[in-house]
Amino acid sequence: MFKSLAEAKQFAADKMKKNMLFGTDRFVCDVYCFEPGQTQAPHTHDGQDKVYYVVEGRGLFQVGNEEKELGAGEMALATSGQNHGVSNRSQQQLVVLVFITPNPSH
Amino acid sequence: MFKSLAEAKQFAADKMKKNMLFGTDRFVCDVYCFEPGQTQAPHTHDGQDKVYYVVEGRGLFQVGNEEKELGAGEMALATSGQNHGVSNRSQQQLVVLVFITPNPSH
Repeated sequence: MFKSLAEAKQFAADKMKKNMLFGTDRFVCDVYCFEPGQTQAPHTHDGQDKVYYVVEGRGLFQVGNEEKELGAGEMALATSGQNHGVSNRSQQQLVVLVFITPNPSH
Repeated sequence: MFKSLAEAKQFAADKMKKNMLFGTDRFVCDVYCFEPGQTQAPHTHDGQDKVYYVVEGRGLFQVGNEEKELGAGEMALATSGQNHGVSNRSQQQLVVLVFITPNPSH
Protein backbone atom coordinates (compact mmCIF):
# COMPACT_ATOMS: atom_id res chain seq x y z
CA MET A 1 0.00 0.00 0.00
CA PHE A 2 3.09 2.25 -0.01
CA LYS A 3 5.06 2.96 -3.20
CA SER A 4 7.92 5.11 -4.38
CA LEU A 5 7.71 6.81 -7.75
CA ALA A 6 11.53 6.80 -7.93
CA GLU A 7 11.50 2.99 -7.82
CA ALA A 8 8.85 2.70 -10.55
CA LYS A 9 10.48 5.28 -12.85
CA GLN A 10 12.04 3.61 -15.87
CA PHE A 11 12.97 4.78 -19.36
CA ALA A 12 13.18 2.80 -22.59
CA ALA A 13 15.15 3.72 -25.70
CA ASP A 14 12.47 2.66 -28.19
CA LYS A 15 9.34 4.30 -26.76
CA MET A 16 7.67 5.95 -23.79
CA LYS A 17 7.77 3.56 -20.82
CA LYS A 18 4.67 3.02 -18.69
CA ASN A 19 4.87 1.33 -15.26
CA MET A 20 1.96 0.70 -12.93
CA LEU A 21 2.10 1.98 -9.36
CA PHE A 22 -1.36 1.04 -8.09
CA GLY A 23 -4.44 -0.52 -9.63
CA THR A 24 -7.88 -1.59 -8.44
CA ASP A 25 -11.20 -2.06 -10.24
CA ARG A 26 -11.83 1.64 -9.67
CA PHE A 27 -8.61 3.14 -11.10
CA VAL A 28 -5.10 2.64 -12.34
CA CYS A 29 -2.15 4.86 -11.40
CA ASP A 30 0.90 4.69 -13.67
CA VAL A 31 4.15 6.56 -14.14
CA TYR A 32 4.94 7.46 -17.77
CA CYS A 33 8.60 8.16 -18.65
CA PHE A 34 9.48 9.94 -21.89
CA GLU A 35 12.97 10.36 -23.29
CA PRO A 36 13.41 13.51 -25.41
CA GLY A 37 11.44 13.07 -28.64
CA GLN A 38 9.14 10.34 -27.30
CA THR A 39 5.37 10.75 -27.42
CA GLN A 40 2.06 9.24 -26.44
CA ALA A 41 -0.02 9.51 -29.59
CA PRO A 42 -3.38 11.24 -29.20
CA HIS A 43 -6.14 8.77 -28.31
CA THR A 44 -9.49 8.60 -26.54
CA HIS A 45 -10.90 6.59 -23.64
CA ASP A 46 -14.62 6.01 -23.69
CA GLY A 47 -16.01 5.89 -20.17
CA GLN A 48 -12.76 6.83 -18.40
CA ASP A 49 -11.33 10.09 -17.13
CA LYS A 50 -7.56 10.63 -17.05
CA VAL A 51 -5.34 13.02 -15.10
CA TYR A 52 -1.72 13.83 -15.91
CA TYR A 53 0.57 15.33 -13.23
CA VAL A 54 4.05 16.39 -14.37
CA VAL A 55 6.69 15.23 -11.87
CA GLU A 56 9.80 16.34 -13.75
CA GLY A 57 10.72 17.77 -17.14
CA ARG A 58 8.43 19.53 -19.58
CA GLY A 59 5.90 18.15 -22.05
CA LEU A 60 3.42 19.35 -24.62
CA PHE A 61 -0.04 18.12 -23.56
CA GLN A 62 -2.98 17.97 -25.91
CA VAL A 63 -6.56 17.72 -24.62
CA GLY A 64 -9.37 18.08 -27.15
CA ASN A 65 -8.46 21.03 -29.33
CA GLU A 66 -6.17 22.63 -26.74
CA GLU A 67 -2.45 22.20 -26.37
CA LYS A 68 -0.24 23.44 -23.52
CA GLU A 69 3.32 22.99 -22.39
CA LEU A 70 3.36 21.84 -18.77
CA GLY A 71 6.22 21.59 -16.28
CA ALA A 72 6.65 20.10 -12.80
CA GLY A 73 3.53 20.53 -10.65
CA GLU A 74 1.24 21.22 -13.61
CA MET A 75 -1.68 18.98 -14.56
CA ALA A 76 -4.08 18.12 -17.34
CA LEU A 77 -7.50 16.46 -17.31
CA ALA A 78 -8.95 14.52 -20.23
CA THR A 79 -12.51 13.42 -19.56
CA SER A 80 -14.23 10.49 -21.25
CA GLY A 81 -14.27 10.92 -25.03
CA GLN A 82 -11.72 13.76 -25.13
CA ASN A 83 -8.77 13.18 -27.41
CA HIS A 84 -5.47 13.50 -25.52
CA GLY A 85 -1.76 12.97 -26.02
CA VAL A 86 1.71 13.95 -24.80
CA SER A 87 4.88 14.92 -26.61
CA ASN A 88 8.32 15.48 -25.10
CA ARG A 89 9.87 18.05 -27.42
CA SER A 90 12.40 19.14 -24.80
CA GLN A 91 15.98 17.97 -24.35
CA GLN A 92 15.26 16.55 -20.87
CA GLN A 93 13.52 13.44 -19.64
CA LEU A 94 9.82 13.86 -18.81
CA VAL A 95 8.14 11.99 -15.94
CA VAL A 96 4.36 12.06 -15.57
CA LEU A 97 2.08 10.57 -12.91
CA VAL A 98 -1.15 9.31 -14.51
CA PHE A 99 -4.54 8.35 -13.07
CA ILE A 100 -7.25 6.69 -15.14
CA THR A 101 -10.65 5.98 -13.62
CA PRO A 102 -12.32 3.56 -13.75
CA ASN A 103 -9.60 1.03 -14.61
CA PRO A 104 -9.75 0.33 -18.37
CA SER A 105 -8.21 -3.14 -17.83
CA HIS A 106 -10.96 -4.32 -15.48
CA MET B 1 -8.47 21.27 -18.32
CA PHE B 2 -5.02 22.52 -17.29
CA LYS B 3 -4.16 23.33 -13.67
CA SER B 4 -1.17 24.27 -11.57
CA LEU B 5 -0.69 22.73 -8.17
CA ALA B 6 1.28 25.81 -7.09
CA GLU B 7 -1.81 27.95 -7.68
CA ALA B 8 -4.11 25.61 -5.72
CA LYS B 9 -1.69 25.19 -2.79
CA GLN B 10 -2.94 27.03 0.28
CA PHE B 11 -2.33 26.68 4.01
CA ALA B 12 -4.60 27.56 6.92
CA ALA B 13 -3.55 28.24 10.50
CA ASP B 14 -6.44 26.36 12.14
CA LYS B 15 -6.40 23.06 10.22
CA MET B 16 -5.24 21.14 7.17
CA LYS B 17 -6.43 22.96 4.03
CA LYS B 18 -8.00 21.01 1.16
CA ASN B 19 -8.45 22.56 -2.30
CA MET B 20 -9.95 20.85 -5.33
CA LEU B 21 -7.99 20.68 -8.57
CA PHE B 22 -10.28 18.55 -10.72
CA GLY B 23 -13.53 16.73 -10.17
CA THR B 24 -15.96 14.70 -12.26
CA ASP B 25 -18.53 12.03 -11.36
CA ARG B 26 -15.71 9.49 -11.61
CA PHE B 27 -13.13 11.07 -9.28
CA VAL B 28 -11.96 14.06 -7.32
CA CYS B 29 -8.37 15.34 -7.24
CA ASP B 30 -7.43 17.62 -4.36
CA VAL B 31 -4.31 19.14 -2.88
CA TYR B 32 -4.02 18.82 0.92
CA CYS B 33 -1.73 21.30 2.71
CA PHE B 34 -0.57 20.60 6.26
CA GLU B 35 1.28 23.02 8.49
CA PRO B 36 3.59 21.34 11.05
CA GLY B 37 1.42 19.55 13.62
CA GLN B 38 -1.71 19.41 11.44
CA THR B 39 -3.40 16.09 10.71
CA GLN B 40 -6.15 14.38 8.79
CA ALA B 41 -7.77 12.13 11.38
CA PRO B 42 -8.07 8.45 10.42
CA HIS B 43 -11.31 7.71 8.60
CA THR B 44 -12.80 5.31 6.07
CA HIS B 45 -14.49 5.67 2.69
CA ASP B 46 -16.95 2.95 1.79
CA GLY B 47 -16.96 2.35 -1.95
CA GLN B 48 -14.06 4.69 -2.77
CA ASP B 49 -10.33 4.17 -3.25
CA LYS B 50 -7.88 6.93 -2.35
CA VAL B 51 -4.30 7.64 -3.41
CA TYR B 52 -1.91 10.03 -1.66
CA TYR B 53 1.15 11.37 -3.52
CA VAL B 54 3.59 13.48 -1.46
CA VAL B 55 4.64 16.60 -3.39
CA GLU B 56 6.74 18.26 -0.68
CA GLY B 57 7.60 17.77 2.96
CA ARG B 58 7.22 14.59 4.99
CA GLY B 59 4.18 13.02 6.59
CA LEU B 60 3.24 9.99 8.62
CA PHE B 61 0.65 8.01 6.63
CA GLN B 62 -1.57 5.39 8.19
CA VAL B 63 -3.38 2.80 6.06
CA GLY B 64 -5.18 -0.01 7.87
CA ASN B 65 -2.80 -1.23 10.58
CA GLU B 66 0.33 0.06 8.82
CA GLU B 67 2.04 3.38 9.28
CA LYS B 68 4.90 4.82 7.22
CA GLU B 69 6.68 8.14 6.94
CA LEU B 70 6.63 9.27 3.31
CA GLY B 71 8.52 12.06 1.55
CA ALA B 72 8.36 13.67 -1.89
CA GLY B 73 7.56 11.17 -4.65
CA GLU B 74 6.21 8.55 -2.25
CA MET B 75 2.63 7.31 -2.30
CA ALA B 76 0.00 5.50 -0.31
CA LEU B 77 -3.16 3.66 -1.36
CA ALA B 78 -6.21 3.21 0.87
CA THR B 79 -8.82 1.03 -0.77
CA SER B 80 -12.52 1.06 0.10
CA GLY B 81 -13.10 0.31 3.77
CA GLN B 82 -9.46 0.75 4.83
CA ASN B 83 -8.91 3.19 7.65
CA HIS B 84 -6.44 5.94 6.66
CA GLY B 85 -5.04 9.21 7.94
CA VAL B 86 -2.11 11.63 7.71
CA SER B 87 -0.07 13.43 10.34
CA ASN B 88 2.57 16.10 9.77
CA ARG B 89 4.93 15.60 12.72
CA SER B 90 7.78 17.39 10.91
CA GLN B 91 8.84 21.03 11.20
CA GLN B 92 8.13 21.69 7.50
CA GLN B 93 4.95 22.19 5.51
CA LEU B 94 3.53 19.05 3.88
CA VAL B 95 1.80 19.11 0.47
CA VAL B 96 -0.07 16.03 -0.78
CA LEU B 97 -1.85 15.35 -4.06
CA VAL B 98 -4.96 13.23 -3.45
CA PHE B 99 -7.20 11.20 -5.76
CA ILE B 100 -10.47 9.67 -4.62
CA THR B 101 -12.49 7.50 -6.97
CA PRO B 102 -15.38 7.49 -7.56
CA ASN B 103 -16.19 11.03 -6.40
CA PRO B 104 -17.73 10.83 -2.89
CA SER B 105 -19.62 14.13 -3.47
CA HIS B 106 -21.52 12.85 -6.53
